[in-house]
Amino acid sequence: MRKAVVLLSGGIDSTVTAHYAKKREKFDIYPVTYVYAQRHKTEIEMAKRQAETLGVKKHLIFSLQDFKRIGGSALIDEGTDIPIERDVRDITAVGIPITYVPARNIVFLSIALAYAESLEAFDIFIGVNAIDYSGYPDCRPEFIARFEAMANIGTKAGVENKGRFCIHTPLVDLRKREIIRLGASLGVDFSLTWSCYNPQEGGKPCRVCDSCLLRKKGFSEAGIKDPLD
Amino acid sequence: MRKAVVLLSGGIDSTVTAHYAKKREKFDIYPVTYVYAQRHKTEIEMAKRQAETLGVKKHLIFSLQDFKRIGGSALIDEGTDIPIERDVRDITAVGIPITYVPARNIVFLSIALAYAESLEAFDIFIGVNAIDYSGYPDCRPEFIARFEAMANIGTKAGVENKGRFCIHTPLVDLRKREIIRLGASLGVDFSLTWSCYNPQEGGKPCRVCDSCLLRKKGFSEAGIKDPLD
Repeated sequence: MRKAVVLLSGGIDSTVTAHYAKKREKFDIYPVTYVYAQRHKTEIEMAKRQAETLGVKKHLIFSLQDFKRIGGSALIDEGTDIPIERDVRDITAVGIPITYVPARNIVFLSIALAYAESLEAFDIFIGVNAIDYSGYPDCRPEFIARFEAMANIGTKAGVENKGRFCIHTPLVDLRKREIIRLGASLGVDFSLTWSCYNPQEGGKPCRVCDSCLLRKKGFSEAGIKDPLD
Repeated sequence: MRKAVVLLSGGIDSTVTAHYAKKREKFDIYPVTYVYAQRHKTEIEMAKRQAETLGVKKHLIFSLQDFKRIGGSALIDEGTDIPIERDVRDITAVGIPITYVPARNIVFLSIALAYAESLEAFDIFIGVNAIDYSGYPDCRPEFIARFEAMANIGTKAGVENKGRFCIHTPLVDLRKREIIRLGASLGVDFSLTWSCYNPQEGGKPCRVCDSCLLRKKGFSEAGIKDPLD
């Protein structure tokens, strides 16, 4: 069985991607979850539960707590308010929101690449999506292609031609409703996924941040009930 | 004054690069030093001392301690021996040694990029060298070019065309003796630099690892006395 590293945040997209990599693509998956001082720590618990459900050999929880010392994002900076109650059309329109974390997926993929190289794996799965998303530049296919090219030049395994690193993005062209339907068809337990940027007292989602609104729209359009509701 | 992020490990190459960026290129430098469970922790102390000498506003020490949980390198894995007493011609010959850390410079540059983006800086300096070096793939100009291309596609600042990220590698074509002479001309205090992979009791360099041997050859050929001798 081929090994693959899977970025697993505990959100819907990465969870569906992990199930897809294992059940559809038949990889022996090695999930990696980053702890980077985000407000939504509930996600990490969800990632752990999903890794258990998937029966993985190892789940790497990698601390990037010092990301908060870099700053520059409403998702990390404690003092900055996260936008709420925006029209979904505004969220997915042109413009990158203040929840953008500088170079986040670049850092995440780089560490996943290091992990893959040490596992002698050449496949990395990331649940980026360039349709129903927040406009982050590091979610687009043209970025993924450049990262892949860089990875194959900048690593020992790439240079020695033992294989070719491939960044798999199975969700990149899917709408949120399609991602949710795909997850349902793969048996994903959505009660063990988390989307909210701004969890409320008692561990409930706020239902008004961009991420909650995109989740709500996705379930609604998929015709599936969100178990967190 | 333009800002630049400088990767500063505390070794000779990164130290000379930091002095070069400030004194020759006239940047307002922001050094970043990674703590990644390396055996040579003395380097970090040297990096701190150099940052003080350079009078920087901020020195970011970024923990990547979980790198040791990825493994795959003699430089990190506690149980693996570091090669010693190799012929310098073997060190610089074809082949990547077991001290290679998977995707290290890729991870380091990615975090430096995140830091630069949050500082609204577009310049990053790294002291890679592809002449008197250990054969690491992530030290070569072709890798740096691919990283730069990826950075300008995968970041908000790149996409919004506020500027173009540039990875500066002032040492890439220099021999070790030329790097040492350049450092001397810039007033670098080499007693505050560290090279040894395998420090001995009492904080002395081992003088037999690849890095010590390259340092010795460099000072000898530069006709300069190493203050650590």
